[in-house]
Amino acid sequence: MRNFGEDTITQAVIDRIGNAKDPRVKRVSEALVRHLHSFVREVEPSQREWEFAIDFLTRVGHMCTGARQEFILLSDTLGVSMLVDAINHRLPGNATETTVLGPFYVGQPPELALGADISHGETGPRLMVEGSVHSDDGKPLANVIVDTWHSDADGYYDVQKDDGADSLTLRARFRTDQNGRFWFQSIVPSFYPIPDDGPVGQMLTAQGRHPYRPAHVHFMIASPGYETLVTHVFIAGDKYLDSDVVFGVKDKLIRELEPLPAEQNGAAFRLRYDFVLARSAGGKAAAG
Amino acid sequence: MRNFGEDTITQAVIDRIGNAKDPRVKRVSEALVRHLHSFVREVEPSQREWEFAIDFLTRVGHMCTGARQEFILLSDTLGVSMLVDAINHRLPGNATETTVLGPFYVGQPPELALGADISHGETGPRLMVEGSVHSDDGKPLANVIVDTWHSDADGYYDVQKDDGADSLTLRARFRTDQNGRFWFQSIVPSFYPIPDDGPVGQMLTAQGRHPYRPAHVHFMIASPGYETLVTHVFIAGDKYLDSDVVFGVKDKLIRELEPLPAEQNGAAFRLRYDFVLARSAGGKAAAG
Repeated sequence: MRNFGEDTITQAVIDRIGNAKDPRVKRVSEALVRHLHSFVREVEPSQREWEFAIDFLTRVGHMCTGARQEFILLSDTLGVSMLVDAINHRLPGNATETTVLGPFYVGQPPELALGADISHGETGPRLMVEGSVHSDDGKPLANVIVDTWHSDADGYYDVQKDDGADSLTLRARFRTDQNGRFWFQSIVPSFYPIPDDGPVGQMLTAQGRHPYRPAHVHFMIASPGYETLVTHVFIAGDKYLDSDVVFGVKDKLIRELEPLPAEQNGAAFRLRYDFVLARSAGGKAAAG
Repeated sequence: MRNFGEDTITQAVIDRIGNAKDPRVKRVSEALVRHLHSFVREVEPSQREWEFAIDFLTRVGHMCTGARQEFILLSDTLGVSMLVDAINHRLPGNATETTVLGPFYVGQPPELALGADISHGETGPRLMVEGSVHSDDGKPLANVIVDTWHSDADGYYDVQKDDGADSLTLRARFRTDQNGRFWFQSIVPSFYPIPDDGPVGQMLTAQGRHPYRPAHVHFMIASPGYETLVTHVFIAGDKYLDSDVVFGVKDKLIRELEPLPAEQNGAAFRLRYDFVLARSAGGKAAAG
């Protein structure tokens, strides 16, 4: 086949993909070509705009390192991450709501004893984080891994700092006790801008958007037989709750910082959340 | 705004972009979000598939260097480059048809005297390339820059070889004479696979596609007041004319290799094309 023009190129590409062995590859590829060509037909990019798009994507790729994932930032800021999250978590009514993983998760942080202090000398208001993990039928889940990570009081994650990914500060894994409870000490995280010194930051500026996320603590909670829960707990009162740059805020994930009347273990505030895991549905969502 | 789910996230992102100052940025961003979200809604990627997509794009970005443009290969193989080309070249009937730029163009090669040999010692059947440049009203165009580049007899461009982009072999610029004519000596190019040792090659394999392009000589012809012509001349009889991996072949761009009865200037074959430039329409397409 030859002589492809505006009216014939899309079907030509789809026909060519018809030989894909894996039906999922075929289906996703065909849909990608259809939607991508539709976008191009709608906006009619000039050659210079197409060159800009190629250069933009190249710069996004070149910005990605072990400690920086610019394509996740792009997906997050275009709302794609939250849409994928929603599609994969059509959960029963009482299960804890999910939100984006974000670009700062580091696999396999050390498991620490309950009550440990994960701040490793970071300064800021002292915080006691407490919570529990239950099944959606109300049963406490013991021995469940609770992975947590959050920013410092200036809004930076450990992997963003010069000392790099080895430091593992303000992140750790805990294991729930017999009653499904966990607790640890840290400092109060801050709202922060997503890393905006790259092409995604330039895109936000061009789109008239700020780069901020409201203060939050990340959690990833995994137990066999249950959907892995990836979520945040947001701190009530943050000025960015209504304009989170990655569209991740849900009312049910917001909690007050409770001032502690007398300091307990040196903590000035408490943040508490009781998580509910959904039973694994099997199939696609189980990959969560 | 908070609590975005499958039904509300798309409009939320579009609303956020509403503050973009530049109306073109606003329009393209809104369309991107709509089409990208539509694609995600249709294929319902699992979290693992989303992670694969992030990793795929990251690998495409990391594959890009000064001598390798993997995002152009991705655009070319998904038919996007030919679609953008078609949209930008709704030309008068007798103007030479356009095709993709491809990833191997190197800006500003040296200008050589008419008749020069651009093969610089590359081996292969000797070729005399001849042609002319006319306006769409039939007037010969003198003093026009004819930029040309093509592969060697094994199907490789100079920038793909170890000695790198400095060598500038099988590429040069010529200037048409008073009668709009140009000619130079070279060798016959070969069909070739696009660079397929990266993520785009893996995509083609998964889609059941070969990576080949039929043999061709690239031309970029620019003259003030005319649309810059970016095209190829394909060699008749090539086995990949009907399955070009980038969908670039048009019948009117195919020419026979004419065997020369007696060798002329050492050439065994002649390839001839008479190009017709379209007058600049102004506006978007002029960026061509």
